[in-house]
Amino acid sequence: MSMTSPAGPSSATIGAVKEKARRLSLLSMMSTTAAGSGHPTSCMSAAELVAGLFFYAMKIDPKNPNGPDSDRFVLSKGHAAPLLYAALAEAGVFPISRVMTLREFSSELEGHPTPRIPGVDAATGSLGQGLSVAAGLAIGARLDHSPTRVYVLLGDGEMAEGQIWEAAAFAGYYKLDNLTVLADVNALGQSQPTMYQHDLEVYRKKFESEEFSTEVIDGHDVAAVLAALDRAKATKGRPQAIVARTVKGHGFSQVAGKEHWHGKPLPKEMLSRAIEELGGPIDVPADPGKSYERKSLPKPPDFIPPAAPDYDPAKPVATREAYGFALKRLGAVNSHIVAISGDVKNSTFSEIFQNAYPDHFYQGYIAEQNLVSLAVGLQARGKVPFADTFACFLSRAYDNVRMAAISRANINLCGSHSGISIGEDGPSQMALEDLAMFRAVHGSTVLYPSDAMSTERLTEAMARRPGINYLRTSRPKMAILYSKDEKFPIPGFKVVRKSEQDQATVIGAGITLHEAIKAADQLKSAGAAIRVIDLYCVKPLDGKALAEQVKATGGRLITVEDHWLQGGIGEAVLGALARAGAPPAKYRQLAVHDMPHSGKSEELLDAFGISAGHIAAAVREITS
Amino acid sequence: MSMTSPAGPSSATIGAVKEKARRLSLLSMMSTTAAGSGHPTSCMSAAELVAGLFFYAMKIDPKNPNGPDSDRFVLSKGHAAPLLYAALAEAGVFPISRVMTLREFSSELEGHPTPRIPGVDAATGSLGQGLSVAAGLAIGARLDHSPTRVYVLLGDGEMAEGQIWEAAAFAGYYKLDNLTVLADVNALGQSQPTMYQHDLEVYRKKFESEEFSTEVIDGHDVAAVLAALDRAKATKGRPQAIVARTVKGHGFSQVAGKEHWHGKPLPKEMLSRAIEELGGPIDVPADPGKSYERKSLPKPPDFIPPAAPDYDPAKPVATREAYGFALKRLGAVNSHIVAISGDVKNSTFSEIFQNAYPDHFYQGYIAEQNLVSLAVGLQARGKVPFADTFACFLSRAYDNVRMAAISRANINLCGSHSGISIGEDGPSQMALEDLAMFRAVHGSTVLYPSDAMSTERLTEAMARRPGINYLRTSRPKMAILYSKDEKFPIPGFKVVRKSEQDQATVIGAGITLHEAIKAADQLKSAGAAIRVIDLYCVKPLDGKALAEQVKATGGRLITVEDHWLQGGIGEAVLGALARAGAPPAKYRQLAVHDMPHSGKSEELLDAFGISAGHIAAAVREITS
Repeated sequence: MSMTSPAGPSSATIGAVKEKARRLSLLSMMSTTAAGSGHPTSCMSAAELVAGLFFYAMKIDPKNPNGPDSDRFVLSKGHAAPLLYAALAEAGVFPISRVMTLREFSSELEGHPTPRIPGVDAATGSLGQGLSVAAGLAIGARLDHSPTRVYVLLGDGEMAEGQIWEAAAFAGYYKLDNLTVLADVNALGQSQPTMYQHDLEVYRKKFESEEFSTEVIDGHDVAAVLAALDRAKATKGRPQAIVARTVKGHGFSQVAGKEHWHGKPLPKEMLSRAIEELGGPIDVPADPGKSYERKSLPKPPDFIPPAAPDYDPAKPVATREAYGFALKRLGAVNSHIVAISGDVKNSTFSEIFQNAYPDHFYQGYIAEQNLVSLAVGLQARGKVPFADTFACFLSRAYDNVRMAAISRANINLCGSHSGISIGEDGPSQMALEDLAMFRAVHGSTVLYPSDAMSTERLTEAMARRPGINYLRTSRPKMAILYSKDEKFPIPGFKVVRKSEQDQATVIGAGITLHEAIKAADQLKSAGAAIRVIDLYCVKPLDGKALAEQVKATGGRLITVEDHWLQGGIGEAVLGALARAGAPPAKYRQLAVHDMPHSGKSEELLDAFGISAGHIAAAVREITS
Repeated sequence: MSMTSPAGPSSATIGAVKEKARRLSLLSMMSTTAAGSGHPTSCMSAAELVAGLFFYAMKIDPKNPNGPDSDRFVLSKGHAAPLLYAALAEAGVFPISRVMTLREFSSELEGHPTPRIPGVDAATGSLGQGLSVAAGLAIGARLDHSPTRVYVLLGDGEMAEGQIWEAAAFAGYYKLDNLTVLADVNALGQSQPTMYQHDLEVYRKKFESEEFSTEVIDGHDVAAVLAALDRAKATKGRPQAIVARTVKGHGFSQVAGKEHWHGKPLPKEMLSRAIEELGGPIDVPADPGKSYERKSLPKPPDFIPPAAPDYDPAKPVATREAYGFALKRLGAVNSHIVAISGDVKNSTFSEIFQNAYPDHFYQGYIAEQNLVSLAVGLQARGKVPFADTFACFLSRAYDNVRMAAISRANINLCGSHSGISIGEDGPSQMALEDLAMFRAVHGSTVLYPSDAMSTERLTEAMARRPGINYLRTSRPKMAILYSKDEKFPIPGFKVVRKSEQDQATVIGAGITLHEAIKAADQLKSAGAAIRVIDLYCVKPLDGKALAEQVKATGGRLITVEDHWLQGGIGEAVLGALARAGAPPAKYRQLAVHDMPHSGKSEELLDAFGISAGHIAAAVREITS
């Protein structure tokens, strides 16, 4: 519970927090020694900081630590997990005995924190992401008009990650004064001392340059820690940074400040000596084996169906533009939606949402790692984030997406300008790997609509759907294919050309779906019929349903995608058919093989093998 | 040619550079109008800066602008490509007429720069990467004891990218005084003004905090630009930053400083007015259509075979450790090798190389984006870079890898701690998507050795092989499988268990190869024989050769990988077999389906479906 008092902490309070810090250090060492692995020295440098948070500054409901009225803590230096678990236990979230199950197969207390654990909002362990998550939580609190605060603990090694400074700039720019950073500067990285070691002024200047109210303290002086936390809480109009000089392994002379102790548990004999030096043992009962794993994780809140989209069937519309219209329609019935863009809102059309709901739109600027981790923080406070940039630039945030999946986060990502069809800008702006990237994300949904109507329906589906949802949109205008009554189940696909004489199945999406339709029309006039499938949902796939289609066309299959050969539509479909026990009899994969370059969209589709002409040629070849 | 003079530039010199700047602005506008797309206003803000570089400060051999004796320029704000092309043309690298072919299908002058163009070392266009590339070039020059300098032009929008600050910290830490940054602060991003607009002091402080010798100038005052370049060149012991206040669209009043002109070419009527305002037209002859594409791109230099690796066949060794030994062996015969680590050299074992060749090792600290782009810069100066981190953290650098491929770069990346076999650290440290990630990179080679001997031979092969080479290593010790006489061709695989009675083929790699061998031994004692294949090379694949093996075992195939279901070994093999016209008759894919957690390595392999027991069960099922 929060114990802040205007007169400052009493010496009894300081003493109590000191004892908690001692207990946290002991538990960190004991649990890692028992586990045979872990990072005790990384925990010991932050014991006073974390004790100050959990037993002085933060307001936590141990029965509902992830609830909207609890202050939030993000352990950005995730390898200090034992310290966090000890703090949660000492705060009453689960019994102390549970801490000793660290890293065991059957324990929810994993090597690095995940939201399986009450009190944890986002998985950490890949460094440099926690400040962005914290900023997302802070925005969420602000949107909820909640007085709760967000605290984040950074390590100094991880402050080499550029994302930390993306997040700091964002927090400073948006004046997130409900956000406090604690930086545990213990001078030692994993393999050697950090770049700046104990030059605290470097860190002070960095945070001050991002408009943080910053101070430097001795991170092991509890009175100083508590006073700094009080000052942070009282600061208005700017986020705060408490840069703490600390010692890795503080408290045990045999490891304190010494290299080569990163990620090493203390052998048993050393542990005994450490316990002595730290003032003697604490009592930890045997663990009865009951799990405290969170029973349910947040799901996106339901909402009433929005107004139907309305498109003139005669006017082509780009799917990237339909995304913007979709967000706007959804914004009218779902106040949890928050959109963030990487300075491309005019290209991805999230500006349509911004113009309608400016208070629910945030400019992320050109910083994609921050963009995605912000979304993770937002959804942990019940928001429904939609983050957008060019699809190729989402590759800048792949680790963030990976960690979002470990966080069991519900986030929606829109990547525009997919493939070579963007034309003259050239390959640096062409996403050709994003289907592979997003397919290889646990529990993800990968959607690739071919017209405005399906784009709108799928965007709506994303807002209801848990997990990592990825929407691939395209730059060029495309013909309207569907009416407003059409449904788009997930998994699912649409058969857009079909006859009893179909000699092959052609599966495409986005621009290649339209090329396939052109090819079908060309072939028809030559007396050959093909079945054309719009694979608007690339993951998950219904292999059995696809197999039926392929079987009906003599087992002859062509897939065509504006994407590299690897990991996209072709491999997804082959995999699904193989698992359904129904591999195609004859198969041709059309995809981009060579490195593309600038040119008009139509020139490129043809030069790189995915145009209507190539599809028709493949059909002739496969049916000859 | 470099025109610096101790007395400072004469007014004639200043006048000449001014005229060049005028010409560069005109050519930028003219070429983008002709192309119908492009970013003229982004070029116009930097015309004086780039003119000062190309026609005063830099020493460029127009016949060999990528040669070791030319100063180097990296256009980090890659969308200002027309400006660069104009400068290269005015410097005599190719005719001015070629500039007007911008963005055409048949022109090497693409929408964003690539190394197809003489004078360009690395592709840019994904923002925030150029300072890292420049730092790599600077280190390369230093290692060559070359007096050449490296210049990089940043935009202000892109300085929101955290990677810029990773690179700046690195450059400052390593005192790269042959590196000069020019920052074009024109206050306008793509979709709206930048975060700091014309608050130049913010940028000054940021660079100063990274130990850059920094000054702020008016970026359109040529005399000031040249004087600043002189001071930069004279600075010892620190990199330099020239922060320039500029105006987007400078020179043409109808766009200068106005929003909504990002990425928009001037319509023809506006162009005429602009040409007038900029002092009148220049003569540009019609282009005869001759390409100036670089005839050959750098390949890794050859080297004599190193001493053979030497392993006691009875002692298991982790492939991650063998990587370190391999680098050391190679370092003895290849002085071009430079190793960089993301603060994990003691886990990835690149420290073995560091201890032997400390001058050829750089600590990258915890900053993976910088790590990979540094490698791109290094190889452009003929170095053979080997960069390492945990495989899962390479996902932090996916956009950098993507751009490295567009750069036709020759880089070697080692990702350790692959898969669930790492054990207790848990999923944040487990790479389960890296095979998918690296397969979907143009021209990449993906290697996944199962023992120390093959690791060493494959690392050696990487040093000779152009393109993006990825080596996936594992944490646990593994038995030695091969002798020093074994060869490992690319593509290729090893059949490690074979008989005439093989009922199925099992393909694995790394930890799963050893599990497959265990399964083979288990099954053998029950009277069933399986063929076991070590897929040490996941890409490229020889589909025909694999098909022969599968055919010889009745068309029954199992793939087993410590990786998600998507995009890895299973899908790669299925794709290769399908393209060879030989899909398996029966197929089972063993991979990681569910989100893993902490636990002992063996517990996890079994719980997540990829252990020997699961392989044996799959064999029994597929052969029943």
